[in-house]
Amino acid sequence: MRRADPARVDDLVARARGGEPRAVARLVSLVEDAPVGGSEILRQVMAALAPYGGRAHVVGLTGAPGVGKSTTTSALVRELRAADRRVAVLAVDPSSPFSGGALLGDRIRMTDHATDRGVFIRSMASRGHLGGLSWSTPQALRVLDAAGFDVVLVETVGVGQSEVEIASLADSTVVLLAPGMGDGIQAAKAGILEIGDLYVVNKADREGAGRVRRDLRGMLRLADRSPDAWQPPVLATVSQTGKGVDALVAALDEHHAWLSSSGELARRRTRRAREEIEAIAVETLRARWARVGAEEELGRLAAAVVAGESDPYAAADSLLDR
Amino acid sequence: MRRADPARVDDLVARARGGEPRAVARLVSLVEDAPVGGSEILRQVMAALAPYGGRAHVVGLTGAPGVGKSTTTSALVRELRAADRRVAVLAVDPSSPFSGGALLGDRIRMTDHATDRGVFIRSMASRGHLGGLSWSTPQALRVLDAAGFDVVLVETVGVGQSEVEIASLADSTVVLLAPGMGDGIQAAKAGILEIGDLYVVNKADREGAGRVRRDLRGMLRLADRSPDAWQPPVLATVSQTGKGVDALVAALDEHHAWLSSSGELARRRTRRAREEIEAIAVETLRARWARVGAEEELGRLAAAVVAGESDPYAAADSLLDR
Repeated sequence: MRRADPARVDDLVARARGGEPRAVARLVSLVEDAPVGGSEILRQVMAALAPYGGRAHVVGLTGAPGVGKSTTTSALVRELRAADRRVAVLAVDPSSPFSGGALLGDRIRMTDHATDRGVFIRSMASRGHLGGLSWSTPQALRVLDAAGFDVVLVETVGVGQSEVEIASLADSTVVLLAPGMGDGIQAAKAGILEIGDLYVVNKADREGAGRVRRDLRGMLRLADRSPDAWQPPVLATVSQTGKGVDALVAALDEHHAWLSSSGELARRRTRRAREEIEAIAVETLRARWARVGAEEELGRLAAAVVAGESDPYAAADSLLDR
Repeated sequence: MRRADPARVDDLVARARGGEPRAVARLVSLVEDAPVGGSEILRQVMAALAPYGGRAHVVGLTGAPGVGKSTTTSALVRELRAADRRVAVLAVDPSSPFSGGALLGDRIRMTDHATDRGVFIRSMASRGHLGGLSWSTPQALRVLDAAGFDVVLVETVGVGQSEVEIASLADSTVVLLAPGMGDGIQAAKAGILEIGDLYVVNKADREGAGRVRRDLRGMLRLADRSPDAWQPPVLATVSQTGKGVDALVAALDEHHAWLSSSGELARRRTRRAREEIEAIAVETLRARWARVGAEEELGRLAAAVVAGESDPYAAADSLLDR
């Protein structure tokens, strides 16, 4: 299906909405394979999906390597399935077992869900080695949302930009920590205090877990929140055994209810749509520049800047004047 | 000097080129305070600086917190000053002593250079808590280059995007490591193998330094480099005492000579100028959209996408059709 065929797009969307895993997988691949800035067929798919979005609860999970993100994701899937809720997992993490960079144990654990039609698991390439989310992540979320999953879990590696990016994409962001990860790392990651809607100290049966929770609560108290703002809870889990995962699901539901009743859900989703539209508009422009030969012009302008004959602003102006 | 005054801009540029520290500091502030996408005065400053660039050797230093970036930067400054070379330091690192987040010892160490007119030290705000370089970093580098510094050292915290970004901005990228930093971190940072032109194992007097060097050399050997490509050396320093810093300066000079003779310097600088021009063009467009009221239009379009009445691509098209 290289060329756009509206009838086939509609058929694929209908099958994906009916819960057919292969149709969902096909649409996610289509989104992932589209060039930056989109393609004709992607435009058709997005138009066909538009009326069916907005139902899924998008949950981002982030945390440093070793805190147990994948184990927690797997435990969440099990807990949500037990309540008969449909779950999709999008793993944007080069080191995730879903992405193949796994310990055998983790991979076996995930195959628990392999034959369950209420679960869809997909790994996505990250942008670069430091785990930035790829251009197509928001569009893949639109596919999974329209396909009727109740919860979409997005697992990202907690180094670099991806954790900030996921906080801007998800309805609820869960920041995972674990005892014994070294003070240096935790300190360097002070930014996590601004992105979490929920904090989870995993491996809570290990020494030092209580201190991590206390420290975290202390740091969160210092943040200046208005009284009617959401107060991020600090939970404890042992995801390996499933302990505390029921409370995590309950806290996620509570956050979702708060998002809806406070109007914050609509605000977050509108802001997200704005950013997505603007990014697509900018990339569409870039693609147009490439078509009208502005690429070569850009090369000439860059050479002039390097030679000291022009400066970047004057060069940008003459690029735009074309 | 809020409004653009060509005579005063020329005067400021002339004084900065004459090595007057206050004029250099003023220009860097001007660059840093300009809105994303630039301002009229920034455009004038960049035009006035254009003919004087391209001389400085821009060296990026990156590495995880705790490897000794600031100590190494300070030792490099001392070594370069001993050879009577003018040095500027741009610290884009929230945890750097130059940025004020310092141990007292480090701060005192840097004041060694405080009265030396051949040294200019400046910290710059990073973008977000994870240390992404700010929009204005390339322009600040243009100021320091035109001001006649022989070497510009850019210190970035080695978490997140900043280390990839600095590799795209610097002529030579130095990746610092240290023994005893934990295998988890090193593994998570496999991306560093692609960005370093030089690798330095600092704290080389500590246990395990030999192994870090051997492991690193082994990993670098696995990279598939063409025979005439630069082979990144793996050096050892004890920056606290200055040991090995002379060899680091020699290796930096060697890399600079290789960059020039191989044509790679011109290629890197042209690529960098292209990216800078394109980024400015895109931001200029955004600013124009804001002026013509496209901001409100974008809000309306985002609301339609959230309501399922439109999709992001259709919305981007109607934004561009304005």
